[in-house]
Amino acid sequence: MAGPPLAFTGSRLDRADNVRADPEALAGMMNWRAKLLVLDGLMPGLDDANGLVWGTLADAPDDAELVFLGLDAQEGGGTKPCFAAVPPEGDASPRMANPRLWGLMQALRPDDLALYGGARSIVDWHARHRFCAACGGPTKIAKGGWQRNCERCSAQHFPRTDPVTIMLVEYASASGPRLMLGRGLGWPEQAFSALAGFVEPGESIEEAVAREVFEESGVRVRDVSYIASQPWPFPSQLMMGCHSHADDDALVIDETEMAEIEWYTREQVQAALAGDGPFNAPPPHAIAHHLLNWWINK
Amino acid sequence: MAGPPLAFTGSRLDRADNVRADPEALAGMMNWRAKLLVLDGLMPGLDDANGLVWGTLADAPDDAELVFLGLDAQEGGGTKPCFAAVPPEGDASPRMANPRLWGLMQALRPDDLALYGGARSIVDWHARHRFCAACGGPTKIAKGGWQRNCERCSAQHFPRTDPVTIMLVEYASASGPRLMLGRGLGWPEQAFSALAGFVEPGESIEEAVAREVFEESGVRVRDVSYIASQPWPFPSQLMMGCHSHADDDALVIDETEMAEIEWYTREQVQAALAGDGPFNAPPPHAIAHHLLNWWINK
Repeated sequence: MAGPPLAFTGSRLDRADNVRADPEALAGMMNWRAKLLVLDGLMPGLDDANGLVWGTLADAPDDAELVFLGLDAQEGGGTKPCFAAVPPEGDASPRMANPRLWGLMQALRPDDLALYGGARSIVDWHARHRFCAACGGPTKIAKGGWQRNCERCSAQHFPRTDPVTIMLVEYASASGPRLMLGRGLGWPEQAFSALAGFVEPGESIEEAVAREVFEESGVRVRDVSYIASQPWPFPSQLMMGCHSHADDDALVIDETEMAEIEWYTREQVQAALAGDGPFNAPPPHAIAHHLLNWWINK
Repeated sequence: MAGPPLAFTGSRLDRADNVRADPEALAGMMNWRAKLLVLDGLMPGLDDANGLVWGTLADAPDDAELVFLGLDAQEGGGTKPCFAAVPPEGDASPRMANPRLWGLMQALRPDDLALYGGARSIVDWHARHRFCAACGGPTKIAKGGWQRNCERCSAQHFPRTDPVTIMLVEYASASGPRLMLGRGLGWPEQAFSALAGFVEPGESIEEAVAREVFEESGVRVRDVSYIASQPWPFPSQLMMGCHSHADDDALVIDETEMAEIEWYTREQVQAALAGDGPFNAPPPHAIAHHLLNWWINK
């Protein structure tokens, strides 16, 4: 990959999964040394060094459900256990356009942004999964926050991560390579990015890429290759960036999803990344930005 | 990839996602021409040509929840809409050792196996998600079976696919490359495969590979690369096969998960794939089998 590491990767925490399944070890972590991530709903605080703000377990409400995030190495040696409390409400439909979130991504130190992203995804999952999907009964946090158990039917539930493909489609035109980028319905004018979609049950990554591109653009692709992945915590996607080739550039745009789809030249993509092109490139925190950089540099 | 396509890929159905969101188009599909996948619980029938058995919508109970699987092209032109009915119960803990499932994988034609895998994952998801995880209220099938809506709080729920990493770890020993393979707790004697684990919120594929290998074997890996992916419908994993390198072969085995971990030579892996090695290789339907073939042939 060209450029800096992808946003939301590179958390410094040791997830110490052996602690989760060991009630005694877990109880031993929940002491005065433990750190509690300060959250206002799902939003973190920001300290003077652009890091996350931490409190102690004493700051959590008495009946709070606590998630064990992992161990944080301390300057001078040793580790501190890190927790986050499940907030009263999750965020069922986080808006990508939320300016507070984009401001946060720009402000937070990269390793703290990664730590926050993982913590946000999991406490949000808990907040939206207080009941059992199998029987409707109440569920209770278990395994240090990496599981919920139904108190009525004993079903076990696990945090969810949704795989999403996001893909470059390249067409070798007579005048040089072109890249397919699209503007989704409701996106700002000029904002173009790589097409993307959830992987469905019963398909590989490569099949999902081909299906999504065909559904949205009418273009058939071949030779799908994987480039990079990124966890995206709104609420909990695993973005998997791919590249593919098209032999035909004729578009049949799905107008229920896309406002526009265009084929751009290498020069146009490069200019857009430099902030001076025919479209507005996706922001640096999005994997689509890295995919465009990768394409320019390959 | 070396060898034949991965099992559970290559479904011939057109998912026709535009139909899902269009109640009129969907209703128009639910007629006498439509095919209904015959299921006994979650198990399919098998016809004389090793294909799936189909009935008509008249075979479904009056109150059945129907999932629109997609359009099946007919010999001689045209398509037929395909549906599956949600069974009374799902399968909360499908056992990999279930001999009926392995027999089915060997018997079914590859394209029908892929079609069945996708159908099984989604009807099983419906059967285990009749209630709203957010409020405990009853949910109702929507969008042709690609969504459930809560009748009480209006939350929307979507079919789940869990990303799982499965990885080769290679160590360049003085006498040639060695591959790390493990035997999980409770697995048959001699059965070794690639290590695997769920991707957690807040990590990339590459980070998940490194974490899982370290947790289970104590070995640090670098240079993780993606090889291939496979949908696995028990209940609904997306298996993502990767390769990585280790600079040290010293093992610290996590005895809560693994019975044994060994480093095998190329010759040993090749012999095992031929059915005559020091361990029993994973069966051809598993992506691990393909990963071992890939390693032998690379």
